[in-house]
Amino acid sequence: MRKVRFLDPAGSVRTGEWIDGAVEFGSQRFDLEDVSLLPPTDPSKIVCVGLNYAKHAEETDSDIPERPLLFLKTPNTLAGHGDTITLPESRERIDFEGELGVVIGEQCRNVAEEDAEDVIAGYTCVNDLSNRDDQRVEQNWVRGKSFDNSAPIGPVLATPEHLPDGASIETRQNGEVRQSSSIDDLIFEIPELIAEITELVTLEAGDVIATGTPEGVGPISGGDEVEVEVEGVGTLKNDYVAGEFSGDDTHDFVPNQ
Amino acid sequence: MRKVRFLDPAGSVRTGEWIDGAVEFGSQRFDLEDVSLLPPTDPSKIVCVGLNYAKHAEETDSDIPERPLLFLKTPNTLAGHGDTITLPESRERIDFEGELGVVIGEQCRNVAEEDAEDVIAGYTCVNDLSNRDDQRVEQNWVRGKSFDNSAPIGPVLATPEHLPDGASIETRQNGEVRQSSSIDDLIFEIPELIAEITELVTLEAGDVIATGTPEGVGPISGGDEVEVEVEGVGTLKNDYVAGEFSGDDTHDFVPNQ
Repeated sequence: MRKVRFLDPAGSVRTGEWIDGAVEFGSQRFDLEDVSLLPPTDPSKIVCVGLNYAKHAEETDSDIPERPLLFLKTPNTLAGHGDTITLPESRERIDFEGELGVVIGEQCRNVAEEDAEDVIAGYTCVNDLSNRDDQRVEQNWVRGKSFDNSAPIGPVLATPEHLPDGASIETRQNGEVRQSSSIDDLIFEIPELIAEITELVTLEAGDVIATGTPEGVGPISGGDEVEVEVEGVGTLKNDYVAGEFSGDDTHDFVPNQ
Repeated sequence: MRKVRFLDPAGSVRTGEWIDGAVEFGSQRFDLEDVSLLPPTDPSKIVCVGLNYAKHAEETDSDIPERPLLFLKTPNTLAGHGDTITLPESRERIDFEGELGVVIGEQCRNVAEEDAEDVIAGYTCVNDLSNRDDQRVEQNWVRGKSFDNSAPIGPVLATPEHLPDGASIETRQNGEVRQSSSIDDLIFEIPELIAEITELVTLEAGDVIATGTPEGVGPISGGDEVEVEVEGVGTLKNDYVAGEFSGDDTHDFVPNQ
């Protein structure tokens, strides 16, 4: 099942099913153009993992971490599939980072790796937008990673059977492939991440783990369309516009994690 | 007005008023021992400020930041006044950090310093519990600052008129004064913090800004009682018990921000 959250034509928030490019709720069926898709989950927090693909660590001149590098995105970061996202004004470099998102199904703590699949509701696509201007100089990446709408997510929450072994993950910018990898390349696999996080932090139903991005991250300009596709899950697509005071984005490429 | 959230004897969540050490809701009045106080606000996020008192920066061998050092505490960190908090097992050093908390009254973005008071609902006391074992070695302080129940908060949300100019802030451990300062010593004042955060991050009604801790932070042991008092606002008190596998806490004192 591929679950969606959407505003129906009357403005009610519905949780329905994505079938053949339409959405269904109860006996109602809506064309996609008649509804506004919302993020497929309403997390209290997004726990993100940095440097979880070896080649991405390499492109950022970073060592592979000994344990998962964790950081946070707060609920103000959420955006839905199809939303047009305004890049923060006065910031020069906002990067896309396509990622597999794990949606948690129940409140949990101290989950053992072998029990991890029991707490997974399903999977989604995440674009972990990253404000490099601030990230480079912050101890904690708050301005860098939790600016408004920096976590487009969706379009669906696909239940676990939809994610194939070694699912491919691809990010496209204006139709050109920028990131292309497989979740087989994750350094810390999903059960390890769930065990590591829940040693100290309770995860709630609906919370998301953004599992990290492969190599190939790059800057977004106003007017761009960026898609994140996870095999078996779906394709998240967003358009971007420059903020009112957005600077130029022609400066040197200095990727960060 | 000093607002409280509490579970009444029937288990309903109520928002009432703290009067003379009792709580009132509608025409009902409850003795404190008959209710369970909840955190006085239900934030989507707590935005914290590090190194915001000069003498605390000094004790941690840190430079005073050029702009506010921000970090996050997620909703799983909340705990109420009077709650008994279990220290994380397998961690040796958990510190208290008494702080003034600012509670936001309305959703806001791009707030100018001169308008900041318009978005403040009131003030509370926060104990920004800090897991130094992990904080010392993390890029982002997720394990270090967002472990469960690491943000006791309360007992009340005091509306702004209750906070005097230059309010004192004091932390006591088993009755002994450990931190004693004044909010006059804040490096970045509250309007600056609100302007800085809301440049990129929307604050929601109920969100909390933890404004930083003065010098004198130190470790908590199982069996301790820790109080955080902000003049005019109230006194937050919690008891602590050791986690099942808690290590010893006799190692060297190496404070961090």
